Amino acid sequence: MPTDIEIARQATLKPIAEVAGAAGIPGDAVIPFGRHKAKIDTALLPDAPQGKLILVTAINPTPAGEGKTTTSVGLSDALHRIGKKAMLCLREPSLGPCFGMKGGGAGGGKSQVMPMDEINLHFTGDFHAITSAHNLLAAMIDNSIYWGNPLDIDVRRVTWKRVLDMNDRALRQIVGPLGGAANGFPRESGFDITVASEIMAILCLASDLSDLQRRLGDIVVAYTRKREPVYCRDIKADSAMTVLLKDAILPNLVQTLENRPALLHGGPFANIAHGCNSVIATRTALTLADYVVTEAGFGADLGAEKFLDIKCRLAGLKPDAIVLVATVRALKMNGGVAKADLGEPDADAVRTGAVNLKRHIENLKKFGVTPTVAINHFHLDTDEEIAVIREMAGEFGADAVICKHWAEGGAGAEELAGIVAAKADAGASGFSPLYPDDMPLADKITTVATEIYRASVVHFDGGTARQLKQWEEMGYGKLPVCMAKTQYSFSTDPAKLGAPENHEVAIREVRLSAGAGFVVAIAGDIMTMPGLPRVPAAESIHLDENGQIEGLF
Amino acid sequence: MPTDIEIARQATLKPIAEVAGAAGIPGDAVIPFGRHKAKIDTALLPDAPQGKLILVTAINPTPAGEGKTTTSVGLSDALHRIGKKAMLCLREPSLGPCFGMKGGGAGGGKSQVMPMDEINLHFTGDFHAITSAHNLLAAMIDNSIYWGNPLDIDVRRVTWKRVLDMNDRALRQIVGPLGGAANGFPRESGFDITVASEIMAILCLASDLSDLQRRLGDIVVAYTRKREPVYCRDIKADSAMTVLLKDAILPNLVQTLENRPALLHGGPFANIAHGCNSVIATRTALTLADYVVTEAGFGADLGAEKFLDIKCRLAGLKPDAIVLVATVRALKMNGGVAKADLGEPDADAVRTGAVNLKRHIENLKKFGVTPTVAINHFHLDTDEEIAVIREMAGEFGADAVICKHWAEGGAGAEELAGIVAAKADAGASGFSPLYPDDMPLADKITTVATEIYRASVVHFDGGTARQLKQWEEMGYGKLPVCMAKTQYSFSTDPAKLGAPENHEVAIREVRLSAGAGFVVAIAGDIMTMPGLPRVPAAESIHLDENGQIEGLF
Repeated sequence: MPTDIEIARQATLKPIAEVAGAAGIPGDAVIPFGRHKAKIDTALLPDAPQGKLILVTAINPTPAGEGKTTTSVGLSDALHRIGKKAMLCLREPSLGPCFGMKGGGAGGGKSQVMPMDEINLHFTGDFHAITSAHNLLAAMIDNSIYWGNPLDIDVRRVTWKRVLDMNDRALRQIVGPLGGAANGFPRESGFDITVASEIMAILCLASDLSDLQRRLGDIVVAYTRKREPVYCRDIKADSAMTVLLKDAILPNLVQTLENRPALLHGGPFANIAHGCNSVIATRTALTLADYVVTEAGFGADLGAEKFLDIKCRLAGLKPDAIVLVATVRALKMNGGVAKADLGEPDADAVRTGAVNLKRHIENLKKFGVTPTVAINHFHLDTDEEIAVIREMAGEFGADAVICKHWAEGGAGAEELAGIVAAKADAGASGFSPLYPDDMPLADKITTVATEIYRASVVHFDGGTARQLKQWEEMGYGKLPVCMAKTQYSFSTDPAKLGAPENHEVAIREVRLSAGAGFVVAIAGDIMTMPGLPRVPAAESIHLDENGQIEGLF
Repeated sequence: MPTDIEIARQATLKPIAEVAGAAGIPGDAVIPFGRHKAKIDTALLPDAPQGKLILVTAINPTPAGEGKTTTSVGLSDALHRIGKKAMLCLREPSLGPCFGMKGGGAGGGKSQVMPMDEINLHFTGDFHAITSAHNLLAAMIDNSIYWGNPLDIDVRRVTWKRVLDMNDRALRQIVGPLGGAANGFPRESGFDITVASEIMAILCLASDLSDLQRRLGDIVVAYTRKREPVYCRDIKADSAMTVLLKDAILPNLVQTLENRPALLHGGPFANIAHGCNSVIATRTALTLADYVVTEAGFGADLGAEKFLDIKCRLAGLKPDAIVLVATVRALKMNGGVAKADLGEPDADAVRTGAVNLKRHIENLKKFGVTPTVAINHFHLDTDEEIAVIREMAGEFGADAVICKHWAEGGAGAEELAGIVAAKADAGASGFSPLYPDDMPLADKITTVATEIYRASVVHFDGGTARQLKQWEEMGYGKLPVCMAKTQYSFSTDPAKLGAPENHEVAIREVRLSAGAGFVVAIAGDIMTMPGLPRVPAAESIHLDENGQIEGLF
């Protein structure tokens, strides 16, 4: 079987202007970045979102892989093949992790977005712009402290760190500035990876440039010695940051292997942030296409919940259909099979593991939407194993459809496309978020933990409950909550696969993302600056004799 | 008088493909980045540099301004106007300083390169790519130490710092990683601004991608506990860094206000590095045009010396003509007039200050080239003041020509263009570098200090002389030297204007830039990470109601 990179290199890409034209984007709205990437000037598009929104989510991730992005690409290509006007909306991958363990998220097999190397490297510079804007604010905070500290910032309570789009554990925790009076007042600080920046979340939730600037201004960057919040607006950084982000806010157009349009825009963390592509890209796609396929991070317990409770709530979007991706292999792992043994047929293990699938279906119905299960096919899957999945999905009224887009491209997902388009057209989605805006913050957290994770007890450690109350008093009580927990389990223990219930969730820390517009509740150890492995992928990334990149995927 | 930004906004830019076409660049070599920027795929151009190379340098900078970039733009435009096929080559400005005191270097008046806001912000992402490549190497060094330190790196002797394209004094000196074993081994470190990265110098001196990779591999990043050098190549970062830089190495095409082509590429510091645009851009321009106008940083004592002794030496280039820019106002300041009094006519002060001009003419003749003096005209200049300049330039056989390109664009510099083109055509340049490759490093430093700066004594402080000897033993003896001293004076005292001589130069520190291919000799305090002022420009940079950037210039 050819590798992803081999398939990608055999692809014939169309000039991006041609892809844009076929998508109904007027030529003057296409701002080229290289030959196969463009930014779309949304001001030149009609502002009338009318398409149907299709969310692709998945069971809990396992080392076996589920293929959520691959399925999103395949579904979008398939919609085109059955005569529908579709548009794909995905996140941009992060540069840093490419040098560690993995290539970026651009799909796989015959369902990929192109050009994968450029997408995974600097792309159109959005993440660099976010890094610059983030670090400008950081520099201006220390500069304000340096020049007499007129805002009375408590140097022990500066919450705004710096960011780099790099896996660099050595920067997690630092002390500086050192070197004396010319450099400033020493304090503890550190760096996160750029995708963990609140600015990334803000860019992905902003409706336009003025909303972006308002949200940037709302960021709480520090507290005074009297414990009053200091806002980005007080530092007077918000307008210059907006200038730095004025191009980054425009969605990026690329194409699938089948030359169909895809908007890749934004890529916030799916733990301390909401994990979806930008609202602007989604809305742009909804003005251009009749069916918009988008995805959410991690499994449905984290990704879909945030897509629905944060992105849809804040942006006034609603899903017209949801696709829940599962694989025979991943369900077997949920059923206790080791990765090395996944090649053996084992319908019983699929049945055991499919409790994970059933739980996600049941959860999604709580949002008023019955998902369609996409069985992302692998050549070793047996009919018996697949029959088990169909049967278990059917217990909750969910269709389960075999998809062979990895091997066949869009042609392999036409059945799925037909079913999903029909469901979206039928208006069967009765979407509503899980909890109302008015619910107290702690109750929102408890609601997600009990309703979605099926915890029986939620602990609020340390001062977290009191902190939530304080934020309510400050006027942040109506914000949704953004849960940060392991993606591997419904519980906070990554080893508990399947469908654990009656477990305990401990909220160790809460953080206010006042600009993005949510409160982060952290249940477990969340790493916001990854490290490199012993042998980083960077050691083998190189240009071959033809100038092509090797080792990136 | 309209401001630079007002003039810029009235300009009608041509599509960049049209500018490229007029410059003889084939369409398939034009990689667009937005509507008015492009990268040039140099592999698709003929590799036969045949144009004449014209260097624009200046007297020592003063707060009055000399207009070196403005003159470069005006001269190039003027060459076109008199029927010559010309190309302009400039440095890219740095993002960070835009948020501090000043806008970037894109010329002024009617001699500007466009689009000035995009050029000064993210441009085509070159500096972001350099930042990424630099910090990938840094992360891989700490990662190697973390995973058992197989190279036996002495954590006290890691010379490779990190960089950000930001004025952020708080990062100059830090300690980290802190936080325990999971984060690594604490050590002292810090950040420089991106333009100070050795990678910037390397990108600007590399002849192609494989030369780039070789130079990256040659960087000395640390020393072992046995004091042996550790190279970037030992860290295995050089090939991934090359991948990150594969687009950054391509020159960027923009246009002047008169729609003439300009390549802006690279922007190394002019103190710890050589301060010129990339060799690749210069060579590309020489294949495309009959006359290439380029500039060097700071005054001729630093900028031209490095252009000639480093860039021309290492790249096998030679200048066919040199333009030395001076203004009446700057010479008056060299003659002792305060900035507030520059409006008063004062031919005597011009005469006093013109010793600075004479010294630079005399110095340039030591390289075998008699410069043409460009008097960058200001509306208050008197005929008498200008006559003094002509007279003093004439003492060394240099023509002095009035240029009014600031007010009139290329039309104001036609006389200069005619004279310079004629000189270049006449083959009068007898260029040779100041010192031979074979001279010992300390003698090279002494030669520059005595011949160009006119010092009578050169001290080698601390262990600098011994260090130079060690590098000679390691095989670095044939490298040129890169002097880092104040740009405001021939001496190391920025207050000594005019033409000081018989002063003392103390070499406080030497640094090896083994990848770039030079040895840096530091005479004075050189700041490689600027800070922001009390009221940073960032506070007033914003988008106006039409989405145009205000406050950047």
